[in-house]
Order: sequence, then structure tokens, then C-alpha cells
Amino acid sequence: MNEFTDARMLIRPLDAEAASDAEVLQARLTKPAGSLGRIESLGIQLSAIAAAAPPPYPSPAAVAVFAADHGVHAQGVTPWPQEVTAQMVANFLSGGAAINVFARQMCASVTVVDVGVAGSLDAAPGLLDHKVRMGTADLSVEAAMSADEVMAALDIGALVAGELVAKGARCLVTGEMGIANTTASAAVIAALTGRPPAEVTGRGTGIDDATLERKIAAIERGLTRLGIDREPLKVLAEVGGLEIAALAGFIVGGAAARVPVLVDGVIADAALLVAEALEPGVVGCCIAGHRSVEPGAGAALEHLGLEPVLDLGMRLGEGSGACLAWAVVDAAARVMNEMATFDAAGVVEK
Amino acid sequence: MNEFTDARMLIRPLDAEAASDAEVLQARLTKPAGSLGRIESLGIQLSAIAAAAPPPYPSPAAVAVFAADHGVHAQGVTPWPQEVTAQMVANFLSGGAAINVFARQMCASVTVVDVGVAGSLDAAPGLLDHKVRMGTADLSVEAAMSADEVMAALDIGALVAGELVAKGARCLVTGEMGIANTTASAAVIAALTGRPPAEVTGRGTGIDDATLERKIAAIERGLTRLGIDREPLKVLAEVGGLEIAALAGFIVGGAAARVPVLVDGVIADAALLVAEALEPGVVGCCIAGHRSVEPGAGAALEHLGLEPVLDLGMRLGEGSGACLAWAVVDAAARVMNEMATFDAAGVVEK
Repeated sequence: MNEFTDARMLIRPLDAEAASDAEVLQARLTKPAGSLGRIESLGIQLSAIAAAAPPPYPSPAAVAVFAADHGVHAQGVTPWPQEVTAQMVANFLSGGAAINVFARQMCASVTVVDVGVAGSLDAAPGLLDHKVRMGTADLSVEAAMSADEVMAALDIGALVAGELVAKGARCLVTGEMGIANTTASAAVIAALTGRPPAEVTGRGTGIDDATLERKIAAIERGLTRLGIDREPLKVLAEVGGLEIAALAGFIVGGAAARVPVLVDGVIADAALLVAEALEPGVVGCCIAGHRSVEPGAGAALEHLGLEPVLDLGMRLGEGSGACLAWAVVDAAARVMNEMATFDAAGVVEK
Repeated sequence: MNEFTDARMLIRPLDAEAASDAEVLQARLTKPAGSLGRIESLGIQLSAIAAAAPPPYPSPAAVAVFAADHGVHAQGVTPWPQEVTAQMVANFLSGGAAINVFARQMCASVTVVDVGVAGSLDAAPGLLDHKVRMGTADLSVEAAMSADEVMAALDIGALVAGELVAKGARCLVTGEMGIANTTASAAVIAALTGRPPAEVTGRGTGIDDATLERKIAAIERGLTRLGIDREPLKVLAEVGGLEIAALAGFIVGGAAARVPVLVDGVIADAALLVAEALEPGVVGCCIAGHRSVEPGAGAALEHLGLEPVLDLGMRLGEGSGACLAWAVVDAAARVMNEMATFDAAGVVEK
């Protein structure tokens, strides 16, 4: 597969002319200039992504949930058993998880992609088997994966993005599942933002002080081994995760297809840091769905210059925050397609 | 009419047992405890309002846009001509305004209520004629309206709330239109929070420094006349507005009917201050949809102890921010009705 490399070659700058046209259109709609705040800037971004003003609606949306396990689980970084990754995959496939609920609300599809669950999963509708390996190695003692495995995961992400757009998706939503993946994400964020691990490592599912200390120590050992080399593919291989790599590929694939990519919480933010470091500019097609309470999420968003759409104190992952933000993004497109202009409505301007 | 008085008599405390049951249910759903943040607390609030866990869905939602004019417009507090109120009513009725776009997205109805537009409006489907008078008097020189007119507007708001719920609405959304109504709202907010007018008066549709100075001075003259009496009905009569009074009645009517009331920006926040001062506890049925950039909105929400759902830099009014927040409230209900429990999904707990 060369999906990731192919997608990178398709990355183009946002369309400045469409953005300019969109700004002109916003000023003609029946509202005081600027009074819709972020709804207006999101609409302009959608125009710049699609090179059209008004922009196309971001529907239907498609959520891809990349699932994988993490060798660093052995370090006691979370009280949740590793089997929960596979159990939650089953929950996604039967429609009972939070991401299913939110996706149904937004009429979005949910595709679950096994990129590295530590165990065999039964085939099921909605599950794509792209397992690269049975979970990563323990990043605190050795490289989480090989360079080839990183590339395989990146290709899978780009492949899934391309397939979803080919099937009609007009907005991609990043999702993931993997017990211990906030540990790998914090490591990637520390490596790529230069912040100390203690500053970007959070309590994930809600761990106690002793567990948090083990988590930070595990990340520090991984970063010590990584050394000063912060080349993004090397960072992924040493301290990343299979779903983080796949999400980086997914984001690049979405940007290559010129659809908005709704980015979820700390795991997706880590993936976006990698994607933007590899291919500067992809962030222009991305919308930070929400601000996770995980400190690494805030650090990554600040590094990328992104302001999240929602701030609801969430930290679940799965794509839940990004999926909820879709309604706001859809509203932004609707405003530009459906609102009356001052002229058409016979409303005088000040 | 005695709709407002009747509604007040139906106000009851939130249901503590249902709230407790809702908390227990939240802990059994397949997610780390607390990981859905505000989505969880909103779900618990919905249960407390409806006395049911899981709570009913807040759909369909109904937006009521109360329209009225303001005598203080004569003081040059806005560059927009007063006729724009009636022109925007026509825009609401033909479906071209922002609130129409957002309401369509949420499958919510829009009812426009003329409580005091300064001019005769043609009858139209979707328009309720409850005009109390042709706009208020100039609050900077005399009482905006009489005590009887205040009561008439309160009754209209409670009447509309009751009628919408009787027709099937399970969530009410506050909307309004009235050129110069941020002036009256800031006056009400200053009166009921005790903050100085300059602190709670904003640029509304985007006014310049000289206009802002005139706006603050007009409010100060009204408050000087009001004196130290901060009885809410007196505040409404002296410096309020017909749509503000109607919204206060609408909020009380919604709380009486035990449906969640989604509160929009600074005008609705002023109305909620009045409603809560008259009938302490109605705020329990209210959800602050968003944080308007108008400083008075922030001051009112802080006074009421409310945290807004959205913060998107909006300041349009019409009910736009509250309507957008509906999707988040709906998601909160969906989580409690649709997510699998740990037991049912076969997911082990930590």
C-alpha cells in the first residue's frame, strides 16, 4: 500500500478566493456583521476547504474508530484491563457506546477499524480487519513498533479516509479506542510540543495519584530512549500507538480529499500533531471538535493554534466530542446556504 | 388573563429522587465515570425536571420569538432603524433568518409573537398577534410601560409556553427581536445584579464608541429614575421591554409545565433574572444555551450561577445560540436512554 504517500501528494493550500467570497457572502446575510461569531468563521473555513462559497454541507459524516492495544499497559498506567479494548469494540459494533449514540443523532456512520487489538476479533458488519500487530510493544522499555508498522498504520488510516469519502462521506470524524492510549498520546504530545511529560499527562479514565506517577515515569523512560530526535515517524515508532498512527493517516487522507476532518480529544490531537509535522497545512482542513480535559489536549491545540468548538468537560474519546461538534459545523454550512440576504429579505442595513 | 399567576402556582422544586436515580444510571453506562462531563450533568438535570430517569427526549423543541420595539431607540443607542424589527419579523415568517435555519436543523418549530412591534403587522401563519402596545416608551425619560402592560406581557409569555407544550413541545427555546433591546436588557441586568451600567452594557449589533456612551447614559438616566427599588415588576415597568417581560412569563410557563427551557443571550438572560427574582427556583428548569459576548449576559449568568453550554462568540439573539445548544441537550437525553450498561454490553469495570 502507498495510500499515505499518495494522499500526501494531493495536499494543497486552502482556497483563498473561496474564503474571500465566503466573507463577502457572510456580510450580505440578514444579521449584524460578525454576530454569529465562530459559526461565521467555520463557514468560511468550510468554503476554503471545498473551494466553494457557499460551501457544501458536511453531510453525511463518517466516524472511523481505530482500535488498538498498548504494551505500556504492563506498567500499570490504568486500572482498566486490556481486554476492555476488545469488549468496547463489540459494544461499538452492537451500537451501545457513546459514539454510537452521538453518531445516530448526527446521522453519521460508524466504522470500526482494528489496527492492533491484542486478540482475535470475530468478523462483523462495520468492522474492518487491518490489524498490523497484536498491540504495540511497551514504549517504556523498547520501541512501540517498527518503522514498517508505523507506515502500515498510516496507510490504513489514509485508506479508510479515502474509502469513506468515495462512499459519499463529506465530513470525517476521528475516533479511537485503546486501553492505555492516553499514555502513548501524552508521550507523542510531549515529544512534539517540547513540553515536559508531567505537564501533558492526565488522569485519562480517572486514575489515582500513584497510577499517574507510574504513567508519567513510563512516558519519561520512553522519551529518554527517543532522545533529541523528534522526527515524527520516529516519535510514532518509539512512543506512539497503532491507532495514533492510523489517525494521522486518516487526517492526511481527509485533507487530501478536501473534506473537513473533525478532530476529537487527546489521542486525535496527538495524531494531528504528527500529521501537521509531516505535512504542514493539513491542519487547515481540521476542526478541533472539543477541548478534552486531558492536559495534553490543550497543549496540542495551543501548539497547533486551534480553538475547539465545544468545551464540555469531556474526556471519553471514541470520537464523542468531535461527533457532537458536527452539529455546529453543519449549522455553519446551513447559514451560508439558507439564510436570506438583506436585499432578498427587504431588510434595511444600518 | 391570569396565565402568569396560574403558572407561578405550579412551580415545584426539581425532583431529587429522579436526579439521584439518574446519577446511578450514569455510573452504569459503558464509559468511565464522569467522562462525558456536561453531557452527564445535563442528563441528570433533565431527569430532575421531568421526574424520570432516564429522562424524556427534549423533542420536539419549540422556539418562540417575542418581538417588540423600544422607545429608547430615540436616544440614538443603535444605528439600525426601528423598522428593522418589523422587517425581521417578516424574515422570520418567510424562513430566512438565522433562527429559522437553526430551528430547521433541530426540527424545531418557530412561533413569532408580536408583543409590541411599533407598527401594524399583516396576519400570517406562524405569527401570533398579542400586541400590548406600539413599542415601549423611552426608558431614559419615563417608565417604559405601565404595571398593567407588564402583567399583560408576562401573561402572554406564560400563555405561549403553555400552548406550545399543549401542542407537544418537550423543550422551549427563548427567542426575541427588537431593535434597541440590548439597551433595555442591560438596564434590567444592572438593576437586578447591582452592577454599574457601564459594566453590563455592550456593543449589541456592533456600535461605535459614541453610540455606546449614549447607550450607557440612557440606561443611567433610567436607573436614576428607578431609584433603589429593585422589585422585579417595577424594574420591568421602568426600564424593561415588552419582549423581556413576555420572555420572563415564557420561562415561568415552561418551568410550570416541567419542560427544559433553553435560554439564549443577553435579552433572555435579563428575562431569566426577572423570572428567578419573582419565582425563585425556575432557574432549575433552565439551561443557558450559550455565552453571548454581550457583557451583560456574562454578568447575568454569573449572578444566576449558570454555566452556558456553548461559547461561540455569538451575539445575534433571535434564540440562535439557545437553538444551537439544543443538540447537546438532546445528546444528553440520548445517552441516558440509549447507551449500553456495563452488564448488558459484557464490558468489565475497572
